[in-house]
Amino acid sequence: MLFKQIYEEGLAQASYLIGCQASGEAMVVDPKRDIDTYLEEARKNGLKIVAVSETHIHADYLSGARELAQATGATLYLSDEGDEYWKYSGLEGFKHQLLRDGDEIRLGNVRVKAVHTPGHTPEHLSFLVTDGAAAGEPGFLLTGDFVFVGDIGRPDLLEEAAGIVGTAEPGARRMFKSLKEKFLTLPDYVQVWPGHGAGSACGKALGAVPSSTVGYERRFAWWADYLAKDDEEGFVKALLSGQPEAPSYFAVMKRLNRDGMTILGDLPQPHRLTPEQFRQALQGGAVLVDTRDKFAFAGGHLPGSLNIPAGKNFSTWAGWLLPYDRPLVLLAGSEAVQGLVRQLVRIGLDRIVGYIPSLEGYAEGELEAVPQASAAEVKAKWERGEVLILDVRGADEYKAAHIPGALNIHAGRVMQNLQRIPKDRPIVLHCLGGDRSSTAISALLAAGYSNVSNLTGGIKAWQEHGFPLEKGEAPQPVGA
Amino acid sequence: MLFKQIYEEGLAQASYLIGCQASGEAMVVDPKRDIDTYLEEARKNGLKIVAVSETHIHADYLSGARELAQATGATLYLSDEGDEYWKYSGLEGFKHQLLRDGDEIRLGNVRVKAVHTPGHTPEHLSFLVTDGAAAGEPGFLLTGDFVFVGDIGRPDLLEEAAGIVGTAEPGARRMFKSLKEKFLTLPDYVQVWPGHGAGSACGKALGAVPSSTVGYERRFAWWADYLAKDDEEGFVKALLSGQPEAPSYFAVMKRLNRDGMTILGDLPQPHRLTPEQFRQALQGGAVLVDTRDKFAFAGGHLPGSLNIPAGKNFSTWAGWLLPYDRPLVLLAGSEAVQGLVRQLVRIGLDRIVGYIPSLEGYAEGELEAVPQASAAEVKAKWERGEVLILDVRGADEYKAAHIPGALNIHAGRVMQNLQRIPKDRPIVLHCLGGDRSSTAISALLAAGYSNVSNLTGGIKAWQEHGFPLEKGEAPQPVGA
Amino acid sequence: MLFKQIYEEGLAQASYLIGCQASGEAMVVDPKRDIDTYLEEARKNGLKIVAVSETHIHADYLSGARELAQATGATLYLSDEGDEYWKYSGLEGFKHQLLRDGDEIRLGNVRVKAVHTPGHTPEHLSFLVTDGAAAGEPGFLLTGDFVFVGDIGRPDLLEEAAGIVGTAEPGARRMFKSLKEKFLTLPDYVQVWPGHGAGSACGKALGAVPSSTVGYERRFAWWADYLAKDDEEGFVKALLSGQPEAPSYFAVMKRLNRDGMTILGDLPQPHRLTPEQFRQALQGGAVLVDTRDKFAFAGGHLPGSLNIPAGKNFSTWAGWLLPYDRPLVLLAGSEAVQGLVRQLVRIGLDRIVGYIPSLEGYAEGELEAVPQASAAEVKAKWERGEVLILDVRGADEYKAAHIPGALNIHAGRVMQNLQRIPKDRPIVLHCLGGDRSSTAISALLAAGYSNVSNLTGGIKAWQEHGFPLEKGEAPQPVGA
Amino acid sequence: MLFKQIYEEGLAQASYLIGCQASGEAMVVDPKRDIDTYLEEARKNGLKIVAVSETHIHADYLSGARELAQATGATLYLSDEGDEYWKYSGLEGFKHQLLRDGDEIRLGNVRVKAVHTPGHTPEHLSFLVTDGAAAGEPGFLLTGDFVFVGDIGRPDLLEEAAGIVGTAEPGARRMFKSLKEKFLTLPDYVQVWPGHGAGSACGKALGAVPSSTVGYERRFAWWADYLAKDDEEGFVKALLSGQPEAPSYFAVMKRLNRDGMTILGDLPQPHRLTPEQFRQALQGGAVLVDTRDKFAFAGGHLPGSLNIPAGKNFSTWAGWLLPYDRPLVLLAGSEAVQGLVRQLVRIGLDRIVGYIPSLEGYAEGELEAVPQASAAEVKAKWERGEVLILDVRGADEYKAAHIPGALNIHAGRVMQNLQRIPKDRPIVLHCLGGDRSSTAISALLAAGYSNVSNLTGGIKAWQEHGFPLEKGEAPQPVGA
Repeated sequence: MLFKQIYEEGLAQASYLIGCQASGEAMVVDPKRDIDTYLEEARKNGLKIVAVSETHIHADYLSGARELAQATGATLYLSDEGDEYWKYSGLEGFKHQLLRDGDEIRLGNVRVKAVHTPGHTPEHLSFLVTDGAAAGEPGFLLTGDFVFVGDIGRPDLLEEAAGIVGTAEPGARRMFKSLKEKFLTLPDYVQVWPGHGAGSACGKALGAVPSSTVGYERRFAWWADYLAKDDEEGFVKALLSGQPEAPSYFAVMKRLNRDGMTILGDLPQPHRLTPEQFRQALQGGAVLVDTRDKFAFAGGHLPGSLNIPAGKNFSTWAGWLLPYDRPLVLLAGSEAVQGLVRQLVRIGLDRIVGYIPSLEGYAEGELEAVPQASAAEVKAKWERGEVLILDVRGADEYKAAHIPGALNIHAGRVMQNLQRIPKDRPIVLHCLGGDRSSTAISALLAAGYSNVSNLTGGIKAWQEHGFPLEKGEAPQPVGA
Repeated sequence: MLFKQIYEEGLAQASYLIGCQASGEAMVVDPKRDIDTYLEEARKNGLKIVAVSETHIHADYLSGARELAQATGATLYLSDEGDEYWKYSGLEGFKHQLLRDGDEIRLGNVRVKAVHTPGHTPEHLSFLVTDGAAAGEPGFLLTGDFVFVGDIGRPDLLEEAAGIVGTAEPGARRMFKSLKEKFLTLPDYVQVWPGHGAGSACGKALGAVPSSTVGYERRFAWWADYLAKDDEEGFVKALLSGQPEAPSYFAVMKRLNRDGMTILGDLPQPHRLTPEQFRQALQGGAVLVDTRDKFAFAGGHLPGSLNIPAGKNFSTWAGWLLPYDRPLVLLAGSEAVQGLVRQLVRIGLDRIVGYIPSLEGYAEGELEAVPQASAAEVKAKWERGEVLILDVRGADEYKAAHIPGALNIHAGRVMQNLQRIPKDRPIVLHCLGGDRSSTAISALLAAGYSNVSNLTGGIKAWQEHGFPLEKGEAPQPVGA
Repeated sequence: MLFKQIYEEGLAQASYLIGCQASGEAMVVDPKRDIDTYLEEARKNGLKIVAVSETHIHADYLSGARELAQATGATLYLSDEGDEYWKYSGLEGFKHQLLRDGDEIRLGNVRVKAVHTPGHTPEHLSFLVTDGAAAGEPGFLLTGDFVFVGDIGRPDLLEEAAGIVGTAEPGARRMFKSLKEKFLTLPDYVQVWPGHGAGSACGKALGAVPSSTVGYERRFAWWADYLAKDDEEGFVKALLSGQPEAPSYFAVMKRLNRDGMTILGDLPQPHRLTPEQFRQALQGGAVLVDTRDKFAFAGGHLPGSLNIPAGKNFSTWAGWLLPYDRPLVLLAGSEAVQGLVRQLVRIGLDRIVGYIPSLEGYAEGELEAVPQASAAEVKAKWERGEVLILDVRGADEYKAAHIPGALNIHAGRVMQNLQRIPKDRPIVLHCLGGDRSSTAISALLAAGYSNVSNLTGGIKAWQEHGFPLEKGEAPQPVGA
Repeated sequence: MLFKQIYEEGLAQASYLIGCQASGEAMVVDPKRDIDTYLEEARKNGLKIVAVSETHIHADYLSGARELAQATGATLYLSDEGDEYWKYSGLEGFKHQLLRDGDEIRLGNVRVKAVHTPGHTPEHLSFLVTDGAAAGEPGFLLTGDFVFVGDIGRPDLLEEAAGIVGTAEPGARRMFKSLKEKFLTLPDYVQVWPGHGAGSACGKALGAVPSSTVGYERRFAWWADYLAKDDEEGFVKALLSGQPEAPSYFAVMKRLNRDGMTILGDLPQPHRLTPEQFRQALQGGAVLVDTRDKFAFAGGHLPGSLNIPAGKNFSTWAGWLLPYDRPLVLLAGSEAVQGLVRQLVRIGLDRIVGYIPSLEGYAEGELEAVPQASAAEVKAKWERGEVLILDVRGADEYKAAHIPGALNIHAGRVMQNLQRIPKDRPIVLHCLGGDRSSTAISALLAAGYSNVSNLTGGIKAWQEHGFPLEKGEAPQPVGA
């Protein structure tokens, strides 16, 4: 048997290639949309991809399952569990087979059994893998977003991201049942390979370990005790508390993954725009995505551009902020463009019409700087009530300590909450270290706010001066 | 905790980066010699490498432990087990600490315990890793060449590769003890991460699975039954039979890894040689390593060059065939050179003085082709006793089926066995598909053999014609 | 003024960017089809391309004039001289202006005057350039295929390439008149920048000098004496003798350049084919273009593939041999593909559906080698009349010395002359050094010839053995 | 004959490869220090470089003549004209031959004659090239820094750059004589190929034309009239007026080019520094060269770093500002490093110890921004006498129009003039568009100035507001 995890750092997402060298057949589980990786891995190992599957309808990225099935002629294996809202559609034209709990896929000597494990989503499947040549018993469980290393999938994603009310708690209860009746009935030695790179915590830092075992999670996961005591209520409460903000593009992903998306065939290859072409693109409504770092953006940027720095979280911030209905132009070095394109198409941002490598040729007057304000300056104005402090960190960070009176809107949600941000008074933005505030400031400037500045050094600088802080949740707008 | 396997396909070799994000400290186990990979991984994850270790004195590649310690100032942690022959030396100038069974290294909340597990080698350590933030109990065992996925390390490597007689059987007995008293006393759920990518077998194909668990191996490994029944004799016999040929460069690696090797600082950056420089290099004794495929080599090559095609096994064949005491010139495209250099320095072949990208400019008369002979032609001559058939496959393959009367010398050992290969009669070489025979032919031509040809299509072609085959071991030279 | 020659080595073709920095306007003369070069040069120099022109309707490459006009919105300036056969068409949708002798284009302070200089073709223009800021007098003549450095354009191209009988001599007479009445009336100091890199001869070697002057050519060109003595007859005879073979694709180029070709927009970006995709492409009629060198091709190639080695002459040989009506797959390293694509689209071979980087994975039995025959072997068979010698060099080389009785067909014309090559007897091909014979052999093998071999070392090897040679023209087929 | 100009845009510098294809010999004139370009050109054209020469002892870049002679074994041909100050030394170990007026070098059929043409420097040679196969008469003059296209070399460089007083006027008189007695005695049709890309002027814009002819310059160069009227005095006056500032590193270059520099062998290959290595480098005295654009530098930079943006003028600014006695670290993307290294070694800045690709990982507090001041703000303070305006443009630009009272120090000379810049009052720097002021500000900040800001938009912004300007030369410090 060949078993290979393919890990995509930008999305912290794992997909799997499983194959039988004897028969030359392989299966891919949870492919991302830039599928050349799988074609190349299969080729290198002399395997033919005959099956493509996914554990569930993903919300955080666009699935590459249909893309890969199209490119290889493989059969799509998709969940038939869950209610009507969770049924795949648009599968005409693909060889496909729907899976229910207990169904099995065979790849030569390898057997892959579907196990229905709802909780994160109602139709969620895990895959139990048996290497028939080594043992008659299963050795691996692909858990998707069911069980992570040290954690479990959140059941509140749709409620959080798309406002579909009332789905979180029933999901948490289903999760309890899936753990109890499915996961914990497996032997200790079975390996657990999840769909995302969460991890165990070393101190408070988030860990990064690729896999776990049933026995280890059974004993040491945070939920182990609730299950050991059969305490469903405690489990549900613990599971639903403290989950981070979910990007609003998740609802779009969910719908496209269920009903079908554009098949790319090849990755877009945006070319470098001449100055004329760039002007025309902007006139045609294109958004300039400035992928330089926060310092460069602060030093000078093209008015209207959005600052989403290239880096590990590029996909995520692009999903938070970029519009799906407008063409995009990248400001990025030639050598970086293809990598960024991959990250964009992974979340369905396909309309990349070109790039410019630098702002060379622009005079100082044509660009806009981000006004910087030191902690001392901000403090003085804040005391006089002359500025609104806008804290763009997550609700959890705000709750732990914030500048008194500061408004809290997560940087990724600024666009959807403009009505809560006054245009008639100076606004000082901050986050922890300046990355998120740079992105948020770019969004406000693009939205027409003019009296905006950055608290240089973020809340850290404020803290180091010993300026006042307070704890507690932000007042939330009614109906939000 | 961060836990990351770094897998090098050419050597099928695994190294590990383990770190604590809370303290920012990291450790690398079994580093390869091109250590930029680890520096980059540590940097990306915000970690500082403070400890470098290895499970044992490797024989199949040059360890990067000293190189990495030098570059980072980290402490070297090396085994102090085993007898005098297995003691590290040359450690002056390195911060270092010798380890004995039970010693522990701490990285913030992470604990790494040395477990003495002799068998493959006498000083061999495994490392038991505990993520203190997640559980008080160990979750991972780094097994080096002790336990692989579905297999265990071979105890006969030195006997086989360097002719150190009488070490294989005692090693096998130590292996039995280590499995019984160390490995099998661990809980089922502990993950097993080995130093090499062997794997379970799916049919006869060799498998490829990155990790296993104690419980899975306890039940399903080929050796599980012998341990269950406490059958040491059966275990020893099974372990020692059917091991493949070991490259002769292993003895060199072992010595250098124990006593110290050149610290590179940076990887060599060979430049493209002008025709004059190339001529001078050859006059100075350089060997041209022709990394093109067998077809190109057969079509025309520079007399005296050795054919080691770029590909997954480049390191291994380079180790088998290339001299450690002569400068090397690569025939390889510019874009491929750095990758090949990495593969060469991994096994200590550092004297790469340059490369040429093609044989452009050579006329047909200056190059040499490899004469091809069809199965039918060879059969006719073989019947008349006019040719010697030289089968350069492994002893196991030869044993299963070979052309009657064929001499068997593994392609990698041709150089050491020239005295067994007559110069006064036509020789036809073959392997299974033509790769190994191309390499072996290049070695013979370089050694001055002239009447050499290739059985086109190898033994497969012979078989397809229904020509005679027989089974059985090759007669071995006395004293070999 | 900015004046820049852009030289494309594969076609030995020169184009020109001329601009006025004061006004920011630029003009391109004789652009090749991969126009990004011009966009980039203009951008780097802060110029906007407002005019695109060409000296004449080219036969040896596909003009990029329309492509560039489309990309920039520039005006096309094209010749309105010559008879009906030489009138451009398909210009609807392009801003364009037709030029007659004496018309002038202005770019700020720079003036470009059209001078009608027929001979190579009837509509041919040269451009006389005046830098108004430096002098009121012209300093540069862009001569296209009218006057080269040390040579002049051939008037027989269409007769030779497309069999349009009777055009050569009138062309030669027009050339005489253009030299006399246009070129030689200019001052000595005017620079001459031609459309192709021919050159003066240093010994017999062809020279390579980018430019000349009117005065130098007036005195030292081979035609200078004929003009000095007003000897039109001698000039015509000398001009028409000894011209080399012209590729048959020239007629296609001529027609497309006059009437319009596909506008590419972007260069094709062929992707790597999976084994399945490659199989499908071949079944769909694709031709595999094997761009490896002759040695690799001889060592083993896929049956049916054509050997056109990557290198300086790739475009030319591709034009000779590749079909315009079938899809193409390249056998070439990933890093080389885009460069080859450029060379193919420059002559209108746009249907490149993908590439494979190597023949890795093919067994020896699936590939075909090119049988080699030594000069001695060939001599023996030739004496017994058992083989046909096919000499694929140019007619001039054949005339100077050839193997007695050898058939002479230029390697590029083998495909059009299959009826002259018997299938029922062994054929030995040769050229001078083996490059052209490799290409020609690949064409014969693809056309179904089986009894074909290569004279290793070409005619050089034959000569070195002192085997018989003779001089004289080859008998030409009646009606050819 | 082969004749090829190799043009290096960063230095606007031209070198030449001249060869005879018949004999296979070639010569390089005025090579730059990264000589792989010549080796590759020679290889591609099948030539062997047997001669290396230079027109004179260069001041603006480090000659690659010795480097190239070393790599190829070619003979160095160097001027033996000029007085003792201008004699080459350190030639032991090189095959070399000194040249005097009239000496000739032969390359097969090509003849290269040395013509002594002092003026720019006393030992200056031009090379008259005859293609013996085409004509018995010379066709090309390589003029070095004697005659440019539309201009002539300046005789005041040493006086200007190194303060060697009294050399300018005698040089101008020698230049007059060289033009009269050497250049103007050649026929009109001879081509002129200079050592630098100056050019004719189209309007006021500086032109760019690679070559000229004797006849064209004789008639249209700005100096043509003075020579026609034999007006030496007028010529000398015109030649010496209005020459731009010369970098102070010129004196260093001159000395190294005369007496010898380090032979590199290979170009430095700086590797990416880990955070630890970077810290150590800075502690060891290294300078961080921040090659990002002015906007990024203004947004945030590491204190002490110098801003020299990658781009066409990188070499020049590096020469102006970087110290020759300290190690350098580059802040530049990995893909850009090798290109920057070339530009640095071309002017002898070889001590590049590594690079960092970005400031990722630095918090806002660790970086420094460049304070920006709008024209209106600056005007207000200027009126109140609260700021010193420091105009870092050239003296010519200052003379044409400047802010009243502004101090004028060319950006490249800020470091040598710190004593003229007060530390005790606020300083606002400006240039035309912000590039030079960014570089100058970085130099001042690195030198410990703290109260420094940038006039955003430069003098253009000031002008657009209609703020006061005046004309006239800057008061120069006594003794400077």
